[in-house]
Amino acid sequence: MDIPIRIVLLETSHPGNIGASARAMKTMGLSDLVLVRPAHFPSAEATARASGADDVLGGARVAATLVEAIADCSFVLGASARPRSLAWPTVAPREAAQMAWQAAAAGQVAVVFGPEKSGLDNEHLARCQQLVQIPANPVYSSLNLAMAVQVISYELRMAVSGELPEQVPETRPATAGELEHFHQRLREVLETSEFLNPDQPRALLLRLRRLFNRAALDHNELNILQGVLSALDPARRNRR
Amino acid sequence: MDIPIRIVLLETSHPGNIGASARAMKTMGLSDLVLVRPAHFPSAEATARASGADDVLGGARVAATLVEAIADCSFVLGASARPRSLAWPTVAPREAAQMAWQAAAAGQVAVVFGPEKSGLDNEHLARCQQLVQIPANPVYSSLNLAMAVQVISYELRMAVSGELPEQVPETRPATAGELEHFHQRLREVLETSEFLNPDQPRALLLRLRRLFNRAALDHNELNILQGVLSALDPARRNRR
Repeated sequence: MDIPIRIVLLETSHPGNIGASARAMKTMGLSDLVLVRPAHFPSAEATARASGADDVLGGARVAATLVEAIADCSFVLGASARPRSLAWPTVAPREAAQMAWQAAAAGQVAVVFGPEKSGLDNEHLARCQQLVQIPANPVYSSLNLAMAVQVISYELRMAVSGELPEQVPETRPATAGELEHFHQRLREVLETSEFLNPDQPRALLLRLRRLFNRAALDHNELNILQGVLSALDPARRNRR
Repeated sequence: MDIPIRIVLLETSHPGNIGASARAMKTMGLSDLVLVRPAHFPSAEATARASGADDVLGGARVAATLVEAIADCSFVLGASARPRSLAWPTVAPREAAQMAWQAAAAGQVAVVFGPEKSGLDNEHLARCQQLVQIPANPVYSSLNLAMAVQVISYELRMAVSGELPEQVPETRPATAGELEHFHQRLREVLETSEFLNPDQPRALLLRLRRLFNRAALDHNELNILQGVLSALDPARRNRR
């Protein structure tokens, strides 16, 4: 199911940024895109950059004003790249995404992005309940527009469900008994090969145990290691 | 201060993506970029897309192989867009960023991104301790390369800002170059012992790499394993 949060792009100059924003949205499961007075739209460049998100781009609505674009919204976040002379309530994307997702239970939510060069002006700001600012390098904070859409969309997805699909285990874990058997065989082989002095083996064997414990071997892996050990066992080799 | 984590881009087809990645990095305070066999570099398109991050782009090093690009690294994260037939340990960007920042206290860390079309192959995967997967829309998970760099860099910045990483490792971690040497010796020994068929080694060697990557070997442990390998090497034994 799509994440029902709207992205509004204001007076975007570069159609490539519109296409790239559509793609960024779709990768995170957003699909509601509104363009306010785009410089060029529709545009072949936007379509090219949208890649497989041509449906999001094709479904984009064009509005004459920000007020029209957000008329049905009950919570409006403004994406801001810079500090304001008039301090507006500002949060980082993670907190903003939580707020947006909470608000989406009650009504339509929009995140508004200003023009590439200038960002949101005071007329836009006045329509935002809240600003969201992406933490950035103080000496170079100039995120590309579509990159900012990607980061915000990513945090919206994380807020809704940050879980990766579970990995199906390939096989069961090795048991302690199996591990013990392996370590005994390992010790025998190392003693036969004269790598290990049977009188002073402790620290080295303990390190090997710690290492393989940390790896949390599964059953297949233990079988492979047993096979390696048998193949390299000097006792077995000498019997050939 | 820059975040001292390396971004490695493998066989990038589109120079625009290299430039956009440099810009994404700089906005988040990263500057160490290594390109492995880029299709076109330097390139006017890369420079244009880098915008004010031309210093990061200009400082990018070109490497012939992934192994070379990460030779000095002690923790290597691979950015993966898809589930794997051979399950590799995988986390979301937030957790990956925490791991990377912890690991950066002990040695060089790299995050590796595969080619645009195909992503990381098994040869690349074998060099990664850990995969990081950006949660995405299951029906369209195709993030643009530079967008993925932006999201990961953003999470690295989020992880770093504020806290300093914990310290106190027993010894330094093994580097990727040292690990590579170990795995080559392991392969030779397994072939000499006829445990491994040189024509069909892939799945088994990949499993062994995954296992030892997961263990995150330190320098001492790698020395022990090298010693074990030398002691059990049938070629050496036959020479006695």
